[in-house]
Amino acid sequence: MAIEQRSEVGGRRSVGHVIALAGGVGGAKLAHGLAQILQPEQLSIVVNTADDFEHLGLLICPDIDTVLYNLAEVNHLKQGWGREDESFKVLVETKRLGHDAWFRLGDRDIALHLLRRHMLDEGLSLSDITSNLAERLDITHPVVAMSDQAVRTIINTPEGELSFQDYFVHRRCEPIMLGMTLQGLAQARPSAAFSDALVEADLIVFCPSNPYVSIDPILALPGVQKTVAAKPALAVSPIIGGAALKGPAAKMMAELGVEVSALGVARHYAGVLNGFVIDGQDHDLTAAIETLGMHVHTTDTIMQDKAGRVRLAGEVLDFAKTLGVKEPA
Amino acid sequence: MAIEQRSEVGGRRSVGHVIALAGGVGGAKLAHGLAQILQPEQLSIVVNTADDFEHLGLLICPDIDTVLYNLAEVNHLKQGWGREDESFKVLVETKRLGHDAWFRLGDRDIALHLLRRHMLDEGLSLSDITSNLAERLDITHPVVAMSDQAVRTIINTPEGELSFQDYFVHRRCEPIMLGMTLQGLAQARPSAAFSDALVEADLIVFCPSNPYVSIDPILALPGVQKTVAAKPALAVSPIIGGAALKGPAAKMMAELGVEVSALGVARHYAGVLNGFVIDGQDHDLTAAIETLGMHVHTTDTIMQDKAGRVRLAGEVLDFAKTLGVKEPA
Repeated sequence: MAIEQRSEVGGRRSVGHVIALAGGVGGAKLAHGLAQILQPEQLSIVVNTADDFEHLGLLICPDIDTVLYNLAEVNHLKQGWGREDESFKVLVETKRLGHDAWFRLGDRDIALHLLRRHMLDEGLSLSDITSNLAERLDITHPVVAMSDQAVRTIINTPEGELSFQDYFVHRRCEPIMLGMTLQGLAQARPSAAFSDALVEADLIVFCPSNPYVSIDPILALPGVQKTVAAKPALAVSPIIGGAALKGPAAKMMAELGVEVSALGVARHYAGVLNGFVIDGQDHDLTAAIETLGMHVHTTDTIMQDKAGRVRLAGEVLDFAKTLGVKEPA
Repeated sequence: MAIEQRSEVGGRRSVGHVIALAGGVGGAKLAHGLAQILQPEQLSIVVNTADDFEHLGLLICPDIDTVLYNLAEVNHLKQGWGREDESFKVLVETKRLGHDAWFRLGDRDIALHLLRRHMLDEGLSLSDITSNLAERLDITHPVVAMSDQAVRTIINTPEGELSFQDYFVHRRCEPIMLGMTLQGLAQARPSAAFSDALVEADLIVFCPSNPYVSIDPILALPGVQKTVAAKPALAVSPIIGGAALKGPAAKMMAELGVEVSALGVARHYAGVLNGFVIDGQDHDLTAAIETLGMHVHTTDTIMQDKAGRVRLAGEVLDFAKTLGVKEPA
């Protein structure tokens, strides 16, 4: 069921239906690049919801919103969250009214959150709401919440358990991560759109997102890892030259006693992936990653601008064609 | 249990504990005036909640907020709702996202609504939330939600039933009012703070608010009208020279077949009040109102500015001292 599609970056590719798994900024960038090449019916962008949380009576979905804003090209180009050309009138007033405004919600961002809140009150599911918001932002590619049930990442630290946003935003990732648990996982299942895409998928792409707090929660949903392991699947390493471009991935790996490198990430995904994309600076890790049963593609994985996103997405799709179908386990 | 208090407008008064019943702008103005004269422990401002509604996932309490903003002196001086020095960044964005933004919520207003929503999610009652918000706005006088249970005014029109805000804001009061019903009344009771104030009260003042949609819902709560009828109680007429300063009171009276005058209002309250304050232009109605068993005080009832509010509040309290205790019914 491979579909022919026209690429903006030249040539024709045949990759069929692609699922991109995405967390924060890095994930949103590659998803945005893929959306420039693949038609809406060829791509499902499945987004982590385990770092969602309630704040000021609003459901904040940091990863979904980062993906939405990037796909709609209204994201703030430098800060990695929120919207460009944003104001903070509401936040200033909540502060004046004595509320601890540790989470910075801009006015435009609040507008989207009020619509989400309204739809939640009307009983819509998170995945339906996400589709609705994507449509309002004129996004044509499906942005899919991984689950309609609440899964919440809890970071285990020497101080005890911290909710992810408390750890991430409030505490700026300072506490040492001893491990993590996914609250609510037992009651959660993939959303219908995610399940359907999994059946249809010819390729799964793990965008360069945090393996622990962005990708693992998606894989942890019932049936997902098994399905992914049986299909052509590749990751773009979020670790470049032993560091993460953004976010706490490298710090977490070190604290969990894992080698902080693209190889460390590849080991984490061993048995699930048959392709791995690393940055040029990590070229010397190729052989070690190949021993894990993965093909390796080496390129510039830093997406400086939109052209860089499209270029990397094109390379990922080209590389995918070389992976072939996995042997049944 | 009369309390001696110092008046800003001269002299000393002894009126004990006063309950002011308030709806929208007119009510908020007189309540603000009373708060300049009476100490916080001498005044409870009890506010109608029957025009509350849900919008964009927020609980909008138009009358409570008008009272809060007036008491805090942050109200918009001309428009009668919302805050002075307001911006509409969120609203512009919700509109851009395709939401029908018929209810104009400013950014500062939204800040307060987010705090309210947050406290509702935490399980606090509307009266506790209202106290909390009053405190955040540095208001020292108790602002009391009439009830913690939802009561909703439904306007009966030839087109069918309309929720109050749909009738009032969306439809600009254009449909003819055939009558009204109070949804949820059977399950509602006065809030604890209102009940306590009712026991303590030596005087009840009906601020110049709409008799049907602002004052009646408060009186309709179990036990309220009976208690009010047994105590010294007066109203300031919201109808001056056959018209309402603001809002649909006059239009409603006409449509309900009631005489559109201060006398019409007084008849509506017959048996409940023993005092009635009318504007100088309605002086010729005095005798007719007195036949209803009310003392009448005539003065300038239009509150042009803060000094006007304080002056009218002072006159109301002076007039109240002449009412004496009602005969047991």
